[in-house]
Amino acid sequence: METIIGIAAGILTSISMLPQLIKILKEKDVENISPYMITILLTGVSLWVAYGIMLNEWPIILSNAFSVFVNATLLICYFLFSKNN
Amino acid sequence: METIIGIAAGILTSISMLPQLIKILKEKDVENISPYMITILLTGVSLWVAYGIMLNEWPIILSNAFSVFVNATLLICYFLFSKNN
Repeated sequence: METIIGIAAGILTSISMLPQLIKILKEKDVENISPYMITILLTGVSLWVAYGIMLNEWPIILSNAFSVFVNATLLICYFLFSKNN
Repeated sequence: METIIGIAAGILTSISMLPQLIKILKEKDVENISPYMITILLTGVSLWVAYGIMLNEWPIILSNAFSVFVNATLLICYFLFSKNN
């Protein structure tokens, strides 16, 4: 039971930034997005990947590597689209 | 060393939504924010709290309870400020 809840929690927190990224790619507007949020989150999930590598825990590595990818794309979009304002 | 990296990663991912919340409270505008992002993240961190309670792990409970609080406030702000558009 704990494992199922843990896996569900991990999947949800990992994919949560995906709709935000899709919305930004559609609207090409990042006016209300905080760049600090993206930067802090990107640093945090990168550290989770490092933590997973140290413990050799593949679920931690994979879910957070996915988050690193989504958040890095989000940060690139932020700098691309904030130039337009 | 793993513990320090794990704690740093946990603190960063927990506080990451705080600058986003502050920005929204200042600007009272949520046009570019995805409500799906907030809802999925809120469900995810709530499940992490449940997972922490099941394992009796206070660091998991406390850091995610903080995220639940920030994201719940973010969701309330979303509905309050999206009415203005």
